[in-house]
Amino acid sequence: MKKPLILITNDDGITAPGLRALVDFMKELGDVVVVAPDSPQSGMGHAITIDNLLYSKKMILDLDDDENTEEYSCSGTPADCVKLALQEILDRKPDLCVSGINHGSNSSINVIYSGTMSAAIEAGIEGIPAIGFSLCDYTWEANFTHAKAQIQQIVREALENGIPPGVVLNVNIPKLETKEFKGIKICRQARANWKEKFDKRISPSGKEYYWLTGEFELLDKGEDTDEWALANGFISVVPTQFDLTAHHAIQTINNWKLN
Amino acid sequence: MKKPLILITNDDGITAPGLRALVDFMKELGDVVVVAPDSPQSGMGHAITIDNLLYSKKMILDLDDDENTEEYSCSGTPADCVKLALQEILDRKPDLCVSGINHGSNSSINVIYSGTMSAAIEAGIEGIPAIGFSLCDYTWEANFTHAKAQIQQIVREALENGIPPGVVLNVNIPKLETKEFKGIKICRQARANWKEKFDKRISPSGKEYYWLTGEFELLDKGEDTDEWALANGFISVVPTQFDLTAHHAIQTINNWKLN
Repeated sequence: MKKPLILITNDDGITAPGLRALVDFMKELGDVVVVAPDSPQSGMGHAITIDNLLYSKKMILDLDDDENTEEYSCSGTPADCVKLALQEILDRKPDLCVSGINHGSNSSINVIYSGTMSAAIEAGIEGIPAIGFSLCDYTWEANFTHAKAQIQQIVREALENGIPPGVVLNVNIPKLETKEFKGIKICRQARANWKEKFDKRISPSGKEYYWLTGEFELLDKGEDTDEWALANGFISVVPTQFDLTAHHAIQTINNWKLN
Repeated sequence: MKKPLILITNDDGITAPGLRALVDFMKELGDVVVVAPDSPQSGMGHAITIDNLLYSKKMILDLDDDENTEEYSCSGTPADCVKLALQEILDRKPDLCVSGINHGSNSSINVIYSGTMSAAIEAGIEGIPAIGFSLCDYTWEANFTHAKAQIQQIVREALENGIPPGVVLNVNIPKLETKEFKGIKICRQARANWKEKFDKRISPSGKEYYWLTGEFELLDKGEDTDEWALANGFISVVPTQFDLTAHHAIQTINNWKLN
């Protein structure tokens, strides 16, 4: 039987430990092609490169890579990587696209800013089953192997059952030891917000500038949310969609006086 | 009575004719503060600036600006502009945030890539009623005044009725003369896709590079969509949300064998 073809990308860049771990996990499940940014692209949301050119380069990053693994870097955003992979690099449609493992959470409102999830969503838009994986640990030294079994299990189920059309999975993994995981929970996106704080400084030449910083503010006490799951030791899986229509609001706005 | 405070931003940059038109229209309805990118930011999706600094500068772009209009440029993305405006520039919460008028459509799947809509969505996340406006004409010389009455009408209704929490309006305007507009239609986001084509070239130094190009592919025959409305002479209004949960898929994924 033909092995499934798995496209891997991320937003932390092709050399990020989280991606290297995901490549290792996926090699055991299928043929792997990596097309990932050549530099970090965190917080890029669903940006695409319109007014600039894209470079792509074949890479050899892992001497263990066999003929079932190919890797390419791309100078663009995560969404660009997926577009380039599907149109220019792959010779057949992948069976699955996985993005990550992100260094840091993409739960709740973070999904909106996430380059990791934008890559998965881009694949979903193009009709490829897709999953974004994120570990709630921002450090470069984060331990990604604790959740290997669960990540492989989610991927196996996605390959076996498919993912409903128009839906992309957003998987977040709490920062825990393997034996501390309580399980995997299907959730909704928690309502949350970032309370921005701008750190205002003066440059050596006397110009004012700002750093964007902020504090995460959970606005949701539901026990069916990804934030609740993560806080309680579960791996969260949020089915996520790119039809942004607020169908419930159509009727309300229809009552406005518009002609 | 106090005039409403309207925050204006866009993704084409503070000097774009579409923004200048929107400033003119909004001045008649309230006090206006512009915080917009200092350079074009199209296709930026919901990118934010995490690993770089932000500059902001007070501008005088319109000699007609009176004390009810202030303008600031920002070196960041559209979402950065909104964050900076709300935290650092404005001294009170705005009554409304409008983004645009974008030079080009943000209907159907384009909402995902849209810097214009990401700014409006960012305002929505922060609890500000928000509307993104786009004209289906990519040219710099596009005529934005044809839809002045309709844009003002939508804004007046939003100020009067509010917009449901968690919802942001995505307004697209067909490229038509005023008298040709059929009306304003509340719609859902059409299912659509971009069929990418990469234009591969060789740089003067012999390196391969790509330009991302593509063709819009409508996959939806519904007559309740924004694409249908625009094709039939209507201004489309899609209530858009930032809770991306595919609630209908939670049950399906719950049947997977995950522990």
